[in-house]
Amino acid sequence: MSQVPTKVGILLFPGFEPLDVFGPVEAFHTISKQLAKINLVWIGPSLDPVSTAPKEIHTTTMGSTVDTRVVPTHTYDNPPEDLEVLLVPGGLGPRVPTSDAAVAFVKKTYPKLKYLITVCNGAEIAARAGVLDGKRATTNKFGWKASIATGPKVNWVRYDRYVADGNCWTSGGVSAGIDAILAWMVHVYGREVAREVANEMEYEWRDDKTWDPFAYMFSGDA
Amino acid sequence: MSQVPTKVGILLFPGFEPLDVFGPVEAFHTISKQLAKINLVWIGPSLDPVSTAPKEIHTTTMGSTVDTRVVPTHTYDNPPEDLEVLLVPGGLGPRVPTSDAAVAFVKKTYPKLKYLITVCNGAEIAARAGVLDGKRATTNKFGWKASIATGPKVNWVRYDRYVADGNCWTSGGVSAGIDAILAWMVHVYGREVAREVANEMEYEWRDDKTWDPFAYMFSGDA
Repeated sequence: MSQVPTKVGILLFPGFEPLDVFGPVEAFHTISKQLAKINLVWIGPSLDPVSTAPKEIHTTTMGSTVDTRVVPTHTYDNPPEDLEVLLVPGGLGPRVPTSDAAVAFVKKTYPKLKYLITVCNGAEIAARAGVLDGKRATTNKFGWKASIATGPKVNWVRYDRYVADGNCWTSGGVSAGIDAILAWMVHVYGREVAREVANEMEYEWRDDKTWDPFAYMFSGDA
Repeated sequence: MSQVPTKVGILLFPGFEPLDVFGPVEAFHTISKQLAKINLVWIGPSLDPVSTAPKEIHTTTMGSTVDTRVVPTHTYDNPPEDLEVLLVPGGLGPRVPTSDAAVAFVKKTYPKLKYLITVCNGAEIAARAGVLDGKRATTNKFGWKASIATGPKVNWVRYDRYVADGNCWTSGGVSAGIDAILAWMVHVYGREVAREVANEMEYEWRDDKTWDPFAYMFSGDA
């Protein structure tokens, strides 16, 4: 493995949340053009397209249908040998039975990784895999209570937008993943590069992990 | 068509920018659960997966590979009859020859739509289709000059984050699409609903079209 990681995998499972994935993926796309080498792979249960709608929940109470389907490049059984970074999104998916396979994949894969990054309640997948035990971590603030119940041995940090402990980076809900990935890019590539990525994305980056109004907004979910 | 639109299409073409699509799609996902009925469809050149990498540009100067592939539900030739809202993303795609088909689709489809929404240089697609002629519109601020050259009869607005003129909503670059879609949700569903969507996305929403630091940051691109 190189000093600076290049092989980045996105973990897909039925019911993943779109922006949990595509906020960070946009940052990887942007940095990949002229600032850093990134080889992005998509890891699903099989090579079939993976839907944002979990199999168990086809519609909403409103009669909505909002499937998004993304095509994996690799499977849980055959991931790239040289995977260095794994990004785990949240959504409804971590709370349905099909997520067991994703949990097993994280458990199996984590020891080989340079970095594990979770967004939103993707932390539930990592917590259930046991890889956050004894570590400081965060998760979505809208739905805090249900998320942290999955990791009784995790030192949950409620009032930060994202948390880094060792090689585990965990983020608050949905959009917080963009701030988390930019902070991770500061760590790996330096602040100047991360700032260039944020600007090209025309993203108002809060370069401060303690900035999280949503943690206070949703603090009633005790 | 109902008063409040429900049928929303995402225009896919090779080389679309991920967050241009998935910022607004996340907002549609979020509102669709308990706040509004949304039927989301994905419209591509064919039913084959559509890649964020345009066919003409396979790699970057860094040796990166960052394909994301999304599966369409409909084609340009057979879109849903009752399509009401069309979202047009930007990216490298609008600047390669395969975008001609997307331009033709927008030209053909616009007269039936209740709303056309563009993100980033997706405005180039709409401008080339002629549907922005005589209208106020904006586009990405990083790359302003190349974008506005595609629409000499458009009244380009440089210093706003997003612009609404009639039923055309146009947004600044990438992340600005999230602010634009939330503003559009204010217009359609009311401010309280849009605020709920932003909060659940843990997104720092700037509910002010005149807020755009990137317009000033990149104003040297005259």
